[in-house]
Amino acid sequence: MDLVQDADWSKGAAYIDGQVMPVAEAKIPITDWGYRRSDVTYDVVGVYYGSFFRLDEHIARFRRSMQELRMEPKESDAELRQILIDLVRRTGLREAYVAMDCLRGRPPRGVPFHPAFAKPYIAAFAIPWVWLFTEEQQARGVHAIIAKTPRIAPESVDPTVKNFHWGDLTKALFEAEEAGAETAFLLDQAGFLTEGPGYNCFAVIDGTVVSPPRGALLGQTRDSVYELCQELGIPHDIRPISKAELEDADEIFMSTTAGGIMPVSRLGTRILGNDRPGPISATLRETFWKKREQGWHATPVNYDKAPA
Amino acid sequence: MDLVQDADWSKGAAYIDGQVMPVAEAKIPITDWGYRRSDVTYDVVGVYYGSFFRLDEHIARFRRSMQELRMEPKESDAELRQILIDLVRRTGLREAYVAMDCLRGRPPRGVPFHPAFAKPYIAAFAIPWVWLFTEEQQARGVHAIIAKTPRIAPESVDPTVKNFHWGDLTKALFEAEEAGAETAFLLDQAGFLTEGPGYNCFAVIDGTVVSPPRGALLGQTRDSVYELCQELGIPHDIRPISKAELEDADEIFMSTTAGGIMPVSRLGTRILGNDRPGPISATLRETFWKKREQGWHATPVNYDKAPA
Repeated sequence: MDLVQDADWSKGAAYIDGQVMPVAEAKIPITDWGYRRSDVTYDVVGVYYGSFFRLDEHIARFRRSMQELRMEPKESDAELRQILIDLVRRTGLREAYVAMDCLRGRPPRGVPFHPAFAKPYIAAFAIPWVWLFTEEQQARGVHAIIAKTPRIAPESVDPTVKNFHWGDLTKALFEAEEAGAETAFLLDQAGFLTEGPGYNCFAVIDGTVVSPPRGALLGQTRDSVYELCQELGIPHDIRPISKAELEDADEIFMSTTAGGIMPVSRLGTRILGNDRPGPISATLRETFWKKREQGWHATPVNYDKAPA
Repeated sequence: MDLVQDADWSKGAAYIDGQVMPVAEAKIPITDWGYRRSDVTYDVVGVYYGSFFRLDEHIARFRRSMQELRMEPKESDAELRQILIDLVRRTGLREAYVAMDCLRGRPPRGVPFHPAFAKPYIAAFAIPWVWLFTEEQQARGVHAIIAKTPRIAPESVDPTVKNFHWGDLTKALFEAEEAGAETAFLLDQAGFLTEGPGYNCFAVIDGTVVSPPRGALLGQTRDSVYELCQELGIPHDIRPISKAELEDADEIFMSTTAGGIMPVSRLGTRILGNDRPGPISATLRETFWKKREQGWHATPVNYDKAPA
């Protein structure tokens, strides 16, 4: 316990299956199927202005993901909630990226080599806030391409169960780099928009904010975009978006925990608007952060109370 | 160094980016993209009868996989070869499962959040031999099903670059469990056979040994099956295999490093042959291990020489 109290927590705190430690010491066994078979689900919740955003919704989605993968770790939702709050408290961070993973573990020797015989467990950590794109990139608009690599089909790996199957996304990021862009949107095999590496995609088409109905994570920030549209009286829809429609969109933006609402100013060789965020994207982004500051969907962290 | 010398190595030895340790201490940072984005490739080579099997071919395939993912760790092929040999020597194991991984790492703060800015590194370990199926299961034939879950398409994630994208394979294993079977073969979205969780698939159709041309790992043990067919005068071919053909096959078997050649005796509700391995599968399996014992493609480990 002395070790725990004396550690430097400002770079991050972690929890693995009952133990708390500085994030630098948080490690996964090389033989764990959570790593070796990417047999793991996760969620990420953000802390900004000293408050969690949609904490209970993130935990509920994480629980559903675990159930889909037939993982039953020992922690209840209430316990997990307290673990995450305590991790952030311990770091003292007012802006934090908070991840929760559930790993399969590995069956012991002597039982069938099958995931049903492993004992899933939870790992979580809070580290200083991560911007998926810098504030400069967000202000001028991110440069994107449409990747040639198709997204993994939902029939093979369900994207609504948040997962680390990033092979296609990583390949798309290298495509973007080769094209001098910063990120890449992936289509499905039929040529419709899915998502990008770490975010949901939106297009503004004829004044309506649209995002795809399938092939993508059901993002919490995505939900927030629709809430904002409702509130601001901006027409919005969820429907398939073809490659041609995306290429011809009035505006494009992305949403994610680690970035909020992030406008795009270039798609391949096309320059959108005036090479700057479009008006609807900019309004949504501004309103998003203003409401966050005002305590929208917030669970404030009590930093004075020492973790148990 | 005392710690290294006093450790118990019999349960396995590991190497991570220049450091050697007992396998129980070999861990991956929870923030590493090798885990968090499954941005990693790997290979597995077997040691049996005190010798590596096709060691240099495995290292060559691993190098090609790393190049495909644009990973350049510091170790040369010759250095990697020596690392693997030393790990096995250190354990003293005559039968070992030897894995080599190359992980992406993670870009440091302050550079773009892109895989091109990370520093890939190698992790490897040797542990006591793992049978994917027990010797009893192999002797009576494994019970398989054809999964409803389709394999991740090669356009999204290339299966010839050995990877941990096992979400579809894991789902298929749960399908197998529900059906009272032990494993599952996956089809592609067009309904043709690809591979199973951890192995290549073969069907014997009208006396010819066939396996699919795409959608599967180019297995070293698969290559060995074709060599054996050649040597034994068994007709063999590489061509697409439809679901109907698979269901109607005379024999079915699997191949993998952690099991060699493993016959199947049931496919769904169908009992093959006499509920026991078919004659061609049994002959191939027997010949495979006999030749292994005789030093086929072997790199013997000199257990007397202490590791450097």
